[in-house]
Formats: sequence, C-alpha cells, structure tokens
Amino acid sequence: MVQPIDLLIRPHWVIPIEPAGVVLGDHAVAIHDGCILAVLPAREAAQRFEPARSVELAGHVLLPGLVNLHTHAAMTLLRGYADDLPLMSWLKSRIWPAEARHVSPAFVHDGTLLACAEMLRGGVTCFNDMYFFPEAAARAALELGMRAAIGIIAVEFPSAYATDADDYLSKGLATRDEFRGEPLLSFCMAPHAPYTVADRTLTRIATFADQLGLPIHIHVHETAAEMEESLKLHHARPVARLERLGLLDSRLIAVHGIHLDATEIAQFAQRGCHLAHCPTSNLKLASGFAPIAAALEAGVSVGLGTDGAASNNRLDMFREMRHAALIGKAVSGDASALDCHRVLRMATLEGAAALGLDDRIGSIVPGKAADLCAVDLGSPDLSPCYDPASHLVYVAGREHVTHVWVGGEARVEQGTVLRISNGDLLRVAEIWHNALGES
Amino acid sequence: MVQPIDLLIRPHWVIPIEPAGVVLGDHAVAIHDGCILAVLPAREAAQRFEPARSVELAGHVLLPGLVNLHTHAAMTLLRGYADDLPLMSWLKSRIWPAEARHVSPAFVHDGTLLACAEMLRGGVTCFNDMYFFPEAAARAALELGMRAAIGIIAVEFPSAYATDADDYLSKGLATRDEFRGEPLLSFCMAPHAPYTVADRTLTRIATFADQLGLPIHIHVHETAAEMEESLKLHHARPVARLERLGLLDSRLIAVHGIHLDATEIAQFAQRGCHLAHCPTSNLKLASGFAPIAAALEAGVSVGLGTDGAASNNRLDMFREMRHAALIGKAVSGDASALDCHRVLRMATLEGAAALGLDDRIGSIVPGKAADLCAVDLGSPDLSPCYDPASHLVYVAGREHVTHVWVGGEARVEQGTVLRISNGDLLRVAEIWHNALGES
Repeated sequence: MVQPIDLLIRPHWVIPIEPAGVVLGDHAVAIHDGCILAVLPAREAAQRFEPARSVELAGHVLLPGLVNLHTHAAMTLLRGYADDLPLMSWLKSRIWPAEARHVSPAFVHDGTLLACAEMLRGGVTCFNDMYFFPEAAARAALELGMRAAIGIIAVEFPSAYATDADDYLSKGLATRDEFRGEPLLSFCMAPHAPYTVADRTLTRIATFADQLGLPIHIHVHETAAEMEESLKLHHARPVARLERLGLLDSRLIAVHGIHLDATEIAQFAQRGCHLAHCPTSNLKLASGFAPIAAALEAGVSVGLGTDGAASNNRLDMFREMRHAALIGKAVSGDASALDCHRVLRMATLEGAAALGLDDRIGSIVPGKAADLCAVDLGSPDLSPCYDPASHLVYVAGREHVTHVWVGGEARVEQGTVLRISNGDLLRVAEIWHNALGES
Repeated sequence: MVQPIDLLIRPHWVIPIEPAGVVLGDHAVAIHDGCILAVLPAREAAQRFEPARSVELAGHVLLPGLVNLHTHAAMTLLRGYADDLPLMSWLKSRIWPAEARHVSPAFVHDGTLLACAEMLRGGVTCFNDMYFFPEAAARAALELGMRAAIGIIAVEFPSAYATDADDYLSKGLATRDEFRGEPLLSFCMAPHAPYTVADRTLTRIATFADQLGLPIHIHVHETAAEMEESLKLHHARPVARLERLGLLDSRLIAVHGIHLDATEIAQFAQRGCHLAHCPTSNLKLASGFAPIAAALEAGVSVGLGTDGAASNNRLDMFREMRHAALIGKAVSGDASALDCHRVLRMATLEGAAALGLDDRIGSIVPGKAADLCAVDLGSPDLSPCYDPASHLVYVAGREHVTHVWVGGEARVEQGTVLRISNGDLLRVAEIWHNALGES
C-alpha cells in the first residue's frame, strides 16, 4: 500500500539530533501536513510513499532548523552602527540615543523583516526575540513565515513604546492576545535585565509566567559592573535576587550567564534553568567568557543565541556554533569539550527546550513540525569531508545552506528566500541607513 | 595627455592600509605592468588614464590581498580528519600516522592545489607554508598563480621526504635554487618547532638565514607541555633557547606565541621579532589564548595565520581576522582592543613585513605589486553598512569576495577561481578522501 504524502526529502546525510550523535546515510525524511511522518532508509521510503513533491539533495546534510535563543531582531538596522566599544559606552553613547530617536513600529517591523530574511537564509527557523513594539516583530515574522517566540518586554524606563513597567506589560500581554492562535508564534515574558527591572515588576512577571505558562527571557550576569551594582543596591548577586523573587525555575532563560560561579551553576542545574549562550556578542563587547563547559558538565541545558546584529554583527547560528565550540575548548582547556554533536544539539533541541517547544521542534523525529535546513557540503572549499557533523561546525558556513522549511513549507530554495526579494530588502535597509546615518 | 594602462579598478571604497585607518570613497586604482600605478579620485583617473580593461565594482570595497602568515597547505587533505581532540593526541594518534602512510610529492601537490584554490577564492594572495616536499607545494602555487613563501622545513625525525635534519636542509635549499627567479616565490627557513629541532640544527639554520637573508618560520610557545619539556631538557624556556642560539631577531616569525610572558613580549618588541597569530587553531586545540593585545601594545608586529586545515578547519583569513578581533577584546577585557583597522593591517601589511615582502605587497600604494581583493558588501545580509572597515571584520565573510588579482593578473572573477575548475578540484579531493578514509 503506497501512501500519498506532501514531501519527501532525500539528502546525502540526515543528522536528526535525536538520537544523539547519529549521522544517517541513505535515509529519507517523509513530510505530511507540515509534520515529520517518518525518517527511514531511502529504499524503504521509495516503496512506502508517493510524494507530491520530492527533493533530492545529493551532497547535502539535512538537520533540524536552527533555533536562535536570543536576539533583538529589529537591531539589524543598527548593524555595525557602533563597533569596537565596551558594553556600557556602546549602549549609552551610541545605541540608546539612536533608539530614542528612531524606534517606532515601522523601525521594528522593517528591522525584523531584514533579520528574518537573514536568519531564514542561514538555516534559522525559530528565534527568541526581545525588543520594543513586539507586535511589529510578530507581523514581520509571520510575513516571512518564520517561527518566533515574541518577548513581552519590560523595563522601568519610558520609551516610544511604553511609559512604565506596567504599561510595557499590559501592551505586551495585549499583543499576545492579538496573535493567539497563530501556530508559528509563542510568547515569553521578557524583563530586560535585573539592573533595568525593579523587584515589584519582576514579581509580577513571575506571576504572569506562572499563570500563563510562559518562559522568562532575561539578560543575567553579563558584565562585572552588573554584579557590583547588584551587590551595592540589592545586597545580592542578580541570580540570588531572581531566586528570592521566584524566577529561578525551569521557565528561566538566562541570557549570557558570564559571571556564574560554581554554586550558581549547580543551582541552575538543580532548578532546570536554561542558559542562552551568546559567544560572539560576549567576545565583541569584551564582557568575558561564559563557563559553558562547566555548565554542561553540571547538566544545565544551554541553547545558543546571536544577540542583536548591533553587537555581533550578524545573525548567524553557524557562527555561534563554531564560536561556542572553539571558545568552550579554550576556556575549559579541553579540546574535546563542546564537541560538534553537542553544539549541534545546543543550536537546535536545547534552544527548543528552553522555549518550551521541544515537543514540536528541535529534532527530526516523527510527529514534530517539519522545521528543517539543508546544507550543501559538496563544494571544493569544504572538501574532503570525513564527517558531516564536524564539517557543519568547523568548516561550513550559513552560505552553504540551500533549503529551509518551516512547518513543512519551503522558505528558502537554492539559497533564495522565497517570500521577499533582495531588492525589497535592500530598499528597506537603505531607508533606515539614510535616516540613522544622518543623526 | 592620456596615459594607456593595463587595468583600472573602480570600487565603491578603497581601504589602502597605508595610510592607516583610511577608507577612500570615489577612488580608483590604476594598474600597469603588474604594479599599482596610482590611487586617485575616480574623476581624475578618468581624465589621466586610458585603461585596456576597466572593472566597475559598485558595492565593493577593494583592499590588499590577504597574507596568510602560517599554514601547512597540503594538510587540506586532512580537513576534519580528526576533530575535538587535544594537540598531542591529535598529532600522535591521528595526524602523524596518516602523514606517515600517505605523504608524498603527489599528496603535497594535490593538497596545496586545493588549499591555493580555497585561499584565492577567499581573498588570500600570499601564504607562508611549512610542510614536507616543499617543491611540490611551490609547483601547486605557481600553477594557480599565487604568491607563496615556501618553507625550507627541518625536523630531526625521518619522513618520506628526508632522513635527518641535514637532509631536510639540503633538500630545501636545493628547492630554493630550483625556483630561483620565480617572481611569485620567496623562501623561509622553517624549523618545525623548538621541541622537534636540535640545537645544532637551529644554529645551522640561523647561519643560513643570515647568509641568505631569509626569515625563520617556527612554531613557538604553543602548549604548556612544550614549556615544561623545554625547561626539563634545556633548562630554558623555548624563547630563551632561541635567543641563546641566535634566532631572536627581526627575521624570526614565531607562530602561536601563546605562552609568552611580559619579559618575552618586551624582548620580541626590542628585537623586532614577528608573531604569527593563529586564533582559530589555538582555540580548537585548546592550546590557549595568545596575549596579542599586550604584544601589540608593546609594539610587536603581529600577522595572522590559518594554520593547516586539519586544525581550523578552513583556510579563511576573514575568519582569522574576526577571531583575532573578538578574542583579542575578550582576553584583554577591552572592547576597543584589536579594532577593525588594526586587524585588517595584521592580515595584510604586517604579514607582508614578517615575510620581508612589505616593500612589494601588503598595502595599496604606488609601486607595489597589484595583489588585490574585492569584497561585495551590497547583499541584504550585510545591510545596512555604516562602515566598510568594520563590516569586513565583523559582518562579511570570504563568500563575499568577488575578484582577486595577483601581480595585476586576475585569479578570481565573480567568485570563480580562473585557473582550475571545481570539477578538477573535487576529483583531486575525492581521490585522497578515498585513500585516507580507508586507512
């Protein structure tokens, strides 16, 4: 009995992430109704299925779509706007003034549109966002058909978006209501950082997260200055303060986590907190080296994020995988730390788990959504190839991504984003380049 | 009076490296007889010159060809052959046995051919090589028209290439004689490392370097184990031993230099020694963090190298620039350290200076050879662009290189290497993949 299905993909290799450490040769992935139906030997697939569409990928590896666990997508408009500066002068002298002058729903929509196109083209199918006007980011993600976890942002200071913490929260919650039922969207509570959000607001956020079953996405322990200030103002390190306020559990997505000591790492492991490791941004802002090998050793779940394009300067999860592996080895003094399979899992399944989406995405397993990415390892610059898993981390780049699917629908084919043209993207970038360049 | 010239290049920006920190808009570069004739305003160029060929590069930046100051080009055949292993087990259990079985003139020629194609396509116009059968590497470089500094390699142990240190040296010197007069080739004395070369051999090498006016290319202070062993066997750190043997002067190209203390950095600065910084390889093998910001601060000249593809795993100077900048900031705790202009200079002029070639290459200055590389910054993934210099380091990748010239002759056009086809490169890689994969 031959079964009709929507799509059959036949790559040279499949790296399903689950089970761990596996590379499948001569396998096919069957997709129907947006979901993965089967991962099976190619010969068997040919007998069992009659696909409406069949995609042959002779020199390619197929892996789950990458999950960018921390970004400020709209800040793509500030890509390279201020480089070679430390975090606080970067924020205070360049980024915050530019944001104060320019951030608007149009800025966020257009910046997120550029970001989504860049991410999709680079194999990213889902991103966890934190920025002003989240409804504009949600619209941009849906326009390009990308999965997004939208942040219900909160800070104490006013912006063009909201006047105070309560206003941020009520606007963010209204956005969540507005987009309820969108299968590609989920939401996180997104208090910016311990140093920009007050106790009262953090307590309210813990309650909302509890009631609504939402993750809490927050910058934590990024700089030495943050640690000092917290000790002075709150007589506690930021993690201890979050614990006191009821935020330290499996809903927490702690971004950066550079200054985590052994006790805090043990606490994260015990409470099931998630880390969003952003190696490039941490290096570029000279914030320091996060103790990731130690965190993994302790059993902490660690995903990877690009941070915003203003501090990276691109939204490239291949780059984050490579940097995580390289820095992880050097910091731990162990060249076998953060091996290629571990890093691939961080960039997919562990990111999905942090977002509470690991029942739906993050691995190539029957029943999950068909969020997939194909990478061509067949060019001379990548040859020879002895192991496609290590090639993905140490050799290939996002420029080798050829096809991307979200929920079984093609979003990138032959390296081209399908729902928007390069010309339109360049026009959007030019408008904001002119506006920002003048100010 | 209009002057006929061979070539006029009109990019959107020129980054000439000299003078330092400059980005020129609306300029053209005039080329004749393989050399840079003038860098001048585009309008003036149109009046002064009648070019046989004119290349318009509307969204591009033109910079000097990149200089890869340390590689083992032939090891491209071992790309990804053994990953996630520490240096000594990597060498002893995987790399050295594979080399013992397979290294031959054909291996070196074919591996170097792949390497040269990869490097040229990525904007590298000159590389400093250290490997067995250097005459085979020289042939491959000349076939693709690439500039190379060929290492007269020496180690104490026998190989398929030579029986003992004296044999290595006499064979290497014969290779130098054989290729004398080749304008694209220069030579370095290339003792592998203090821990693989004896005092007597190092002394002979110092004498040859003196007599022949050659740089000395050597791995130095790469691992903690190297330091310990040297103290035990020689009662001196490797740099002190090199000093005692007369190698510590402006001819020295010390590769890695991870374990350099403040005294040794001061000594390098005072003696005019050059460092070849290989950030990716240092991270991947967990060898450590070289104190590059401190070395630059002290006035040491620092170039960049990819090391071999077996420990990187690609020969990508854009990646080395980015890693040098990012790691340099994080290690020094200063986000303004190793800024983009500094890193561009390291990847070009300082590499050339280490090789004694800075009178001929490394910057876009009249009289120098036209070794040039054009990078297209016009794609949506790189937009917006506020500063092409920081974009080259933090955003662009080698995939954005479109044109490369060596001595005024086109080697890459529209991203395609001109002297060899992808099909031929893939066939070469496959032959060795099959041979090495079986063993």
